[in-house]
Amino acid sequence: MRITLLGGTGEIGEGLALRWGHDSDHDIVIGSRDPEKAREAADDYETELADRGVDAKVTGFENTMAADRADVVVLAVPPYHVADTVEAVSDNLAEGDILVSPATGMQRDEDGFHYHPPDAGSVTAIAADAAPEGIPVVGAFHNLAAGRLADLDSSLGIDTLVVADDESAKATVSSLAEDIDGLRALDAGGIANAAEIESVTPLLINVAMNNDGLHDLGVRFD
Amino acid sequence: MRITLLGGTGEIGEGLALRWGHDSDHDIVIGSRDPEKAREAADDYETELADRGVDAKVTGFENTMAADRADVVVLAVPPYHVADTVEAVSDNLAEGDILVSPATGMQRDEDGFHYHPPDAGSVTAIAADAAPEGIPVVGAFHNLAAGRLADLDSSLGIDTLVVADDESAKATVSSLAEDIDGLRALDAGGIANAAEIESVTPLLINVAMNNDGLHDLGVRFD
Repeated sequence: MRITLLGGTGEIGEGLALRWGHDSDHDIVIGSRDPEKAREAADDYETELADRGVDAKVTGFENTMAADRADVVVLAVPPYHVADTVEAVSDNLAEGDILVSPATGMQRDEDGFHYHPPDAGSVTAIAADAAPEGIPVVGAFHNLAAGRLADLDSSLGIDTLVVADDESAKATVSSLAEDIDGLRALDAGGIANAAEIESVTPLLINVAMNNDGLHDLGVRFD
Repeated sequence: MRITLLGGTGEIGEGLALRWGHDSDHDIVIGSRDPEKAREAADDYETELADRGVDAKVTGFENTMAADRADVVVLAVPPYHVADTVEAVSDNLAEGDILVSPATGMQRDEDGFHYHPPDAGSVTAIAADAAPEGIPVVGAFHNLAAGRLADLDSSLGIDTLVVADDESAKATVSSLAEDIDGLRALDAGGIANAAEIESVTPLLINVAMNNDGLHDLGVRFD
């Protein structure tokens, strides 16, 4: 399968690109608004994978061209760029393509990090609202610490919660998630259930900030 | 230490009473608005513990008398009774006592369970707002499946997140939490961070509802 990571030069994009590159044989496409940055990042990821003996194909393109090539498009951009990014690539999505939203909105105050759901209910719902007719949106990968994901020496052993209103798209993305070693995909229902998932991300940061020895936390449901 | 469970005839109260009775030597006091129900529950818990060879002391009293006897008072009542319950026992709390709030507010709709923070920000904050001057409130035990907690044959291996603005009270409750075998207490900061913790409870139910073989879930931070 061909997976495009829009905003794939950022940390969560890097982590997903390296994990899929390392653990699966999917083709990885890095998208960025700047095609030169996309190509550089793709080269860096290929090099890191090659250094680990993995011959993975990672290419880089400007976002619209990257989306054009994809079966699955991950919106690895900050939450305030999710709607713009979907709109920018709308004409490049074809029937059967799937959008994936991993972003979560949070703010820091003097107490810690807090979830602030947008008016749509969640960032995942923003993506769903912005998506062209017929292109399903799946929420996934919200609660993964980007730095840990991008460090292939770090094992996972954690869960990712997957939500979608399209069961087939949810199954596809759950399967892609489980292609990553140590990641278990759990079904958390429809897009309407995304807020409680996104809200776990600031919680993970608060827990890491307040407990010596814990950092880059993930969550496991037992 | 003497721990009172107000609303201790309910499922979360039962679970905490049985776990502390089984795993520690704390005195357990069950509170209820109906003293007869409190005594019956206390007898039942003592009998169950005795059947397992544990000679624990569990007594039952009307809520105000139960609070009078306590060092730590757990508000094991539904979220809409937290403020009333604190007010009802206010005169029975003395300097050095600690209130513990495990309740979380959620509603079910066609999609699943959802967290609805009250105006105070969280149920834990409601308890803190209602508490008498000088009595610290600690949020803990929010994300424990009551049925699993009350089943002593079920092992835990899960975390509970603890929040408070009083560090000494937080340390006391964290230590009580870790007196329960298989429960790890993690510090999640101040009361202002409680909403993201309470929000995990509906998420756990949504995950259990959507994945065959998963039920009575807890959460572990790794």
